[in-house]
Amino acid sequence: MCGTERSSHSIACLSNGSRANLPVIDLDPGNPAVFEEYWRRMGDKCRVDIPGCDLMSYKAPTGNVCWFLLPELEEAIRRLHRAVGNAVVDERHLVVGTGSTQVFQAALYALSTPASHKPIHVVSAAPYYSSYPEETDFLCSRLYKWGGDAKEYDAEKSGAFIEVVNSPNNPDGCMRQSVVNASQGKLIHDFAYYWPQFTPINSPADHDLMYFTFSKCTGHAGSRIGWALVKDREVAVKMTKYIELNTLGVSKDSQFRTAKIIKLLCNDYQKIGLNSSNNFFEYGNRVMAKRWKNLRDVIGRSDVFSLPTFERQYCCFLGRPSRPYPAFAWLKCKEEIEDCGSFLRGYNIEGRHGKRFGADAKYLRISMLSSDDVFYDFLDRLSAIQTFQQ
Amino acid sequence: MCGTERSSHSIACLSNGSRANLPVIDLDPGNPAVFEEYWRRMGDKCRVDIPGCDLMSYKAPTGNVCWFLLPELEEAIRRLHRAVGNAVVDERHLVVGTGSTQVFQAALYALSTPASHKPIHVVSAAPYYSSYPEETDFLCSRLYKWGGDAKEYDAEKSGAFIEVVNSPNNPDGCMRQSVVNASQGKLIHDFAYYWPQFTPINSPADHDLMYFTFSKCTGHAGSRIGWALVKDREVAVKMTKYIELNTLGVSKDSQFRTAKIIKLLCNDYQKIGLNSSNNFFEYGNRVMAKRWKNLRDVIGRSDVFSLPTFERQYCCFLGRPSRPYPAFAWLKCKEEIEDCGSFLRGYNIEGRHGKRFGADAKYLRISMLSSDDVFYDFLDRLSAIQTFQQ
Repeated sequence: MCGTERSSHSIACLSNGSRANLPVIDLDPGNPAVFEEYWRRMGDKCRVDIPGCDLMSYKAPTGNVCWFLLPELEEAIRRLHRAVGNAVVDERHLVVGTGSTQVFQAALYALSTPASHKPIHVVSAAPYYSSYPEETDFLCSRLYKWGGDAKEYDAEKSGAFIEVVNSPNNPDGCMRQSVVNASQGKLIHDFAYYWPQFTPINSPADHDLMYFTFSKCTGHAGSRIGWALVKDREVAVKMTKYIELNTLGVSKDSQFRTAKIIKLLCNDYQKIGLNSSNNFFEYGNRVMAKRWKNLRDVIGRSDVFSLPTFERQYCCFLGRPSRPYPAFAWLKCKEEIEDCGSFLRGYNIEGRHGKRFGADAKYLRISMLSSDDVFYDFLDRLSAIQTFQQ
Repeated sequence: MCGTERSSHSIACLSNGSRANLPVIDLDPGNPAVFEEYWRRMGDKCRVDIPGCDLMSYKAPTGNVCWFLLPELEEAIRRLHRAVGNAVVDERHLVVGTGSTQVFQAALYALSTPASHKPIHVVSAAPYYSSYPEETDFLCSRLYKWGGDAKEYDAEKSGAFIEVVNSPNNPDGCMRQSVVNASQGKLIHDFAYYWPQFTPINSPADHDLMYFTFSKCTGHAGSRIGWALVKDREVAVKMTKYIELNTLGVSKDSQFRTAKIIKLLCNDYQKIGLNSSNNFFEYGNRVMAKRWKNLRDVIGRSDVFSLPTFERQYCCFLGRPSRPYPAFAWLKCKEEIEDCGSFLRGYNIEGRHGKRFGADAKYLRISMLSSDDVFYDFLDRLSAIQTFQQ
């Protein structure tokens, strides 16, 4: 942490007008810049090299349901899940998408019924990922429709539904299970954050339709690679059809690069084991642990904010107990402040407003994944605000 | 052409049952394998190299409307259009998508009105690209709806519409203009094939919303890069929003590779000019010309098939007269054969059925972009069929 004390005093003394001139600290998006330093250190080992005549076809040389999935990517992803132990991959079809955003929409398409007279409701327990409602509704499809908080959903009255279970959950980091107690529901498990840097891995997830993303696994968000593990062949076929009609496949350049980076990650793990900061997940876990400790130290001295707390659990991958270190801090303002977003905006700190997650305005989602500079500037300014409030 | 005579005789003598054992020649998809040889010859010049820590962000370092567009890709695309002279780029916003498939859907979203009570009709003159109806309707959107053949569209009766003008047109290779004569229409110009290898460039296209694709420009279909040139800022903003909600941006790896390859292509053109087979478009034009000559030779000896004919025109880019050499042959069977697709399937030749383009079963779309092996095997078998028919 850089210069907290000095800045605390100077910000605490500022007038409202002067605070508005502070540089904006934007912690709204979840861009995973935190992991860039690791890949910089890896240097040429994870450089990819693509000749001009390679990867030119729409198709992949595969007999797969997902006809555009590169075989080397499939092999790398299956190997990664086996190494990490976070998902069952045997007897699962693998469908690749342009980020988990596209995979989620492919899943909605695959689980809905065109012949049905009414759109199927898509629900998720609040606080839910802010993009689910918009991604579900923006095309005003007659196949599916956002149905709101899963905890409020009355399946008896409202009929068939898809429940999205995000575990650990964005924004609050909690581990989750489905909440709607009804047989006519279908489940989608969003495991974007079920990796050892963010949460203890307790067992391989084993559900009908689970999806993951390279963006949050290693931090390579720019590659736009997500994937689903799908038990039912027909669902995998329909998801593939969605991606065919939507984008005629998925970037081969990104698939190739993702395969190479995941392979490197698995090789390093097999060769050097965990007891080295050269292991990506060990490195990521330490970095996230340090950030959470620093944030909790600042919040602990505060009368203004609080954070969720998490129990220590055994992580099967790390082989030791670990706490969850979520990708986002679900910051809550105390009684006297109605709107956490507006309050922090007064100090030019941007987060994502609680209401966007189906929650109260007292909450604000703060990214824990920014670059070091941005994150420690944030802690710096947050310390100062607390001093000011007191 | 390899071994036409020998094979002609052998196939001509085969029974129906034996014909079914011939290897399948699949000319249904438009995979542009024809250009791979050129890029192989270019060798290391167009190799791309991406360090593990690069291109990791969702965002691009740009002040652009399209917040995920890499500046080097924007620069390369504008330079390419200026060099080829096929589109006006000044005072146009550039929106990148995951192939022209996604760009088309982004355009539908941007030109429709969520507040409207009825979906806007999407029309295109038959024969139209077979994917337009399916891409428009597969999500059963209340924003837009496929309206069929633009020539049959009654705007007085049916109201607001979007007309897609594909020029040169897939499947028949004709140059086109809009056909619906009504003021309440919006236009999308699909210029996937408006490149010098496929058609003479007569002037820079100048329309409100025009789109192109890397897949057909250079043959790099696996990269899934398409782009739109958009006059109206609000339309570009809405298209960007669609891509944000649909895939949270576009592969940076592919954007980076596309920028490098286009830059190389432009550098070569500036350095060596056209009088060399090292110029991609000159090379492409010669290869397509040769294929069309060979196909016309075979069809010319036929009583069974016919092809569209095209006038020679001056190509401003090549600086000489050229004929159109479309990416697809729009093959027509003569009177005695009802269904061209079924007829050729009897010889294990697959094309795309005329009905999928809103046309007659007498037509079949045949890709002219396959690898040399496949294309010349096709000519070989086609020659034999004609012998058989006689």
